[in-house]
Amino acid sequence: MPPIVSIVGKSSSGKTTLLEKVIRELCRKGYTVGIIKHDAHGFEIDHEGKDSWRHKKAGAATVALSSPAKFAVIKDVKKEWPPERIIEAHLSDVDVVITEGFKKSRFPKIEVVRKANSSSPVCAKDKNLIAFATDADISGKGKTPVYPIDDFKGIARLIEKDIIKKHRESPVSLTVDGAAVTLKPFIENLIRDGVIGMIRSLKGCADASEIELRIKRG
Amino acid sequence: MPPIVSIVGKSSSGKTTLLEKVIRELCRKGYTVGIIKHDAHGFEIDHEGKDSWRHKKAGAATVALSSPAKFAVIKDVKKEWPPERIIEAHLSDVDVVITEGFKKSRFPKIEVVRKANSSSPVCAKDKNLIAFATDADISGKGKTPVYPIDDFKGIARLIEKDIIKKHRESPVSLTVDGAAVTLKPFIENLIRDGVIGMIRSLKGCADASEIELRIKRG
Repeated sequence: MPPIVSIVGKSSSGKTTLLEKVIRELCRKGYTVGIIKHDAHGFEIDHEGKDSWRHKKAGAATVALSSPAKFAVIKDVKKEWPPERIIEAHLSDVDVVITEGFKKSRFPKIEVVRKANSSSPVCAKDKNLIAFATDADISGKGKTPVYPIDDFKGIARLIEKDIIKKHRESPVSLTVDGAAVTLKPFIENLIRDGVIGMIRSLKGCADASEIELRIKRG
Repeated sequence: MPPIVSIVGKSSSGKTTLLEKVIRELCRKGYTVGIIKHDAHGFEIDHEGKDSWRHKKAGAATVALSSPAKFAVIKDVKKEWPPERIIEAHLSDVDVVITEGFKKSRFPKIEVVRKANSSSPVCAKDKNLIAFATDADISGKGKTPVYPIDDFKGIARLIEKDIIKKHRESPVSLTVDGAAVTLKPFIENLIRDGVIGMIRSLKGCADASEIELRIKRG
């Protein structure tokens, strides 16, 4: 799973504008960036009258669109997917995932505080807070670094240094009934070597570099 | 992986209209339906000026939107994803996947032939063709059943009987470097029992009903 950082802050604090510039800066540095935007009130996407819109309207639970350069999917869910599940399914191939919202998550967070619409930060006591981006004077809020609200270069450098470069991806990930299972190194090695041993003599599997296995029990 | 059927036919033969009605009919029967639409020329989705559109425009490789009832993702791809990969990642939870297009695939196919725009079927010799839906007289094309072009109930019944009900899902699926590996029953059992044995004493894993394992080799 790629490293994750969340941009949080009150509504209209300027999260999207800052994020837009941070994305541009990280892309300029050569990173691939994935975004998850949380919208508690739902969202509109797709254009009325298009084929995909018609299929969705007719009752399809999931509609995917595939072309040589772009892929899209729109999907009904019974309850909101946790961000980890979204990342596992859709964003495992990027260098860094930035989420907008998810202020209750345990991801490292950067809070945007705009003095015109917020008298105080919402995550000041959150131990996962790694920085503020603000035009207000909140230097008294402990040791959390404070960046100017438009300092997208500084924020991008922070994400590069503290999020992307410190990340070490575990070579084995195990999900059981939708929940990630934490593995100690011994178990990780046991599972990795066990599965590689079981499949290595199958056709085309000797030099496998990425293995995905799904098992359903009746 | 759920069962798959493809609706094929020349451009403007009426695939989308038929599919729309078939989706509605299958949903009425209680099935969940997933759609993959193939578009060789690319497609437009999302609305200019929306946050997700801005993030994508800024350079994000993948943008996901998450709400309590709906989920969406828009993703750049380096080359077109094969439909199997799309299904594995995005449509594994539906009762049936219907694709529009993919006329060269090995999926069972239903071809729509509209006499106003097509003098002859494109898949008449395809051994995966299971039916025609047409307003033309093509009864001479071998033993393939022919349905009236607007007989969405008949087509939905055919999909229910020959695609959904005949499907038996393999309990173990293995993907190596993005390609599905076919497993013989002995190997399937060996891998299933081996992995279950390795994880069963881990916390929360004793009664696992769905196990997903990803392994990356350096």
